[in-house]
Amino acid sequence: MNNFWFSVPTDIFFGKDQVTVLGKNLKKAGAEKVLLAYGHGSIKKNGVYNDIVSELEKVSIPFVELSGIDPNPRISTVREGAEICRKEGVDYIIAAGAGSVIDCCKAIAAARYYSGDPWDFFTRKATIKKALPICTVLTLAATGSEMNGGTVISNPETEEKLATGSMKMKPKFSVLDPCYTFSVPKDQTAAGIADIMSHIFEQYFSYPESAVQDFMSEAILKTIIKYGPTAIEKPDDYEARAQIMWAGTIALNGLLGAGKDGDWATHLIEHELSAKYDITHGTGLAILTPHWMRKVLDKDNVEKFSTYGRNVWGIEGKDPFKVAADSISATSRFFSSLGIPSKLSELGISDDKFEEMAESALKYNSIGRFKCLSKSDIVEIYRNSL
Amino acid sequence: MNNFWFSVPTDIFFGKDQVTVLGKNLKKAGAEKVLLAYGHGSIKKNGVYNDIVSELEKVSIPFVELSGIDPNPRISTVREGAEICRKEGVDYIIAAGAGSVIDCCKAIAAARYYSGDPWDFFTRKATIKKALPICTVLTLAATGSEMNGGTVISNPETEEKLATGSMKMKPKFSVLDPCYTFSVPKDQTAAGIADIMSHIFEQYFSYPESAVQDFMSEAILKTIIKYGPTAIEKPDDYEARAQIMWAGTIALNGLLGAGKDGDWATHLIEHELSAKYDITHGTGLAILTPHWMRKVLDKDNVEKFSTYGRNVWGIEGKDPFKVAADSISATSRFFSSLGIPSKLSELGISDDKFEEMAESALKYNSIGRFKCLSKSDIVEIYRNSL
Repeated sequence: MNNFWFSVPTDIFFGKDQVTVLGKNLKKAGAEKVLLAYGHGSIKKNGVYNDIVSELEKVSIPFVELSGIDPNPRISTVREGAEICRKEGVDYIIAAGAGSVIDCCKAIAAARYYSGDPWDFFTRKATIKKALPICTVLTLAATGSEMNGGTVISNPETEEKLATGSMKMKPKFSVLDPCYTFSVPKDQTAAGIADIMSHIFEQYFSYPESAVQDFMSEAILKTIIKYGPTAIEKPDDYEARAQIMWAGTIALNGLLGAGKDGDWATHLIEHELSAKYDITHGTGLAILTPHWMRKVLDKDNVEKFSTYGRNVWGIEGKDPFKVAADSISATSRFFSSLGIPSKLSELGISDDKFEEMAESALKYNSIGRFKCLSKSDIVEIYRNSL
Repeated sequence: MNNFWFSVPTDIFFGKDQVTVLGKNLKKAGAEKVLLAYGHGSIKKNGVYNDIVSELEKVSIPFVELSGIDPNPRISTVREGAEICRKEGVDYIIAAGAGSVIDCCKAIAAARYYSGDPWDFFTRKATIKKALPICTVLTLAATGSEMNGGTVISNPETEEKLATGSMKMKPKFSVLDPCYTFSVPKDQTAAGIADIMSHIFEQYFSYPESAVQDFMSEAILKTIIKYGPTAIEKPDDYEARAQIMWAGTIALNGLLGAGKDGDWATHLIEHELSAKYDITHGTGLAILTPHWMRKVLDKDNVEKFSTYGRNVWGIEGKDPFKVAADSISATSRFFSSLGIPSKLSELGISDDKFEEMAESALKYNSIGRFKCLSKSDIVEIYRNSL
């Protein structure tokens, strides 16, 4: 196990009606003016918006709004949000929505105190030194952004989608009410599940192997495989939604990757796709993942893949390559069973930009710690995913 | 899954040489005078004491010492420590040792600001409103006290051993260097492992069942079963010590029990034993656990026990009662394989006080949430453990 620093200062309020902690937590933190940020209005349909406003009214904390945050949140929205915070004297941000809203709010929180262009945080031209405090009210189990310091922002001008992270952007607390995910459509629920599983794969298929983390990764994968289909078939099944929601948070709060050197190749390759084609991140991940697995599988890591097959999917057999191949097929079939497209062509993507995307993916860093990928490897994964 | 609040503000610095964060962390926190508390001097033999003092000297933070904290820490030591903190103007406590030292320091931290007798915190006559900040340098994988707000203190005058907990007592940070556990003797290593496993059992065998938590519990149990014997056979095997150390912390930082209604019967029954006979807590737990399991196993929970057998021990078979019974035997055999006594009589305990201890165990609360235990149930568990 590598040395690590594990720090999860985000308090989680999990369960039915936990939004009722919002007002008193903000009051206790001394919030005097809040930015309430959200997406395209689903929170107005499912009651989340009213619940939050009611909480703010109870404690008489005034708020301004930022709405219309996109699924792949734009740097332009970050700039806009930071300007609102400065102009209105906002001292706390409520991110009410999915990972996109939370990521956007994190970047806004940091941009508030930065005089340059916040895109600098993503191109590594600037580091985050200060940020407004934020809390989240989660409405989709997917990114895990509610309990970590990471953010991913798109820049349509440069056709880039880049990530950054900082302790300063970790939410102070997050409200996780599974009921708030009952109204998530099937396709988004499925994409969220794929995103969660991908987060686990990126940490599970990595070195050094480590029992605590890897067995826990298998535990979360088994939970998702057990409850994912129910969450899609019966959208208001509380237990299924609760299991997926908590699984999603744990999948990326640092626990599964502590002491390991995460891979993250599939995420980086996918970011190119959603930057260029604005597709749903989780859908892109589900399509790419089995092809990434097939590409990297070799004699050095076949034991890891066959352990995955045995422990997560219950696949038996003596030939580790056969078990490994079957486990990849099982992964692929599971995504399909959730209704996720299995080919990029189904999303209207052709091979026009594969070379360009592979180059772009390699622009800032090498890709793949479990197995380093060359440009041609990446292009091959794209092609096999067509 | 039940509603829960999950809050783990303790930063973990895990790995070789992580003690080097100590000085700068204390400086950053504004510490001006520190209490360095430890047990009976093993930290002077294995270098931990020198490492800590060197860190304090680097940042020129003066310190006073409290040594001689016992394995079952006494309320008298808590009183003494609190008095030192008041008199010397201590503003930060370093707990350097095992769970006993950490528990004692937590109680001292709270007692510092309480004008009454700190035993009141344990008999529920007083609640903890304020505490000095503490950090820990862990030297034994066992109690998990390094990442939670719980403390267990013994009162030889009343022959009681009672627990209390508070957010205020959660360590600010903990240094977990597996090398610091290389010198732990075999019997203490084994008792620590039993303690960790018991913490997991108390949360795993509880309602409501919950996939995320229960699969993770199995993950940590499998880790311990995999690495426990190596930690005892090869005391300086870094990987084994690291796996056990991190497993021990996760076992009781709130993660495995969040959303569940923990049982804790075995712990409460054991506390009577170590209060009366001053035995090692983990040894008592290892002896009692299989008998607790046999006592509570019935048709309503046999599936849980057989799941435990299948998922943790790999026991196969169609008859759930057979698999359950075999899993209990496997648990018992595992403890014995670590060299832990399997009978109370081996510790010089007779049946003289079983009735009295059962009454005492039930003094403040009912016992057992997985299955409620009567006085005669408790006596029977003691007798079967003789």
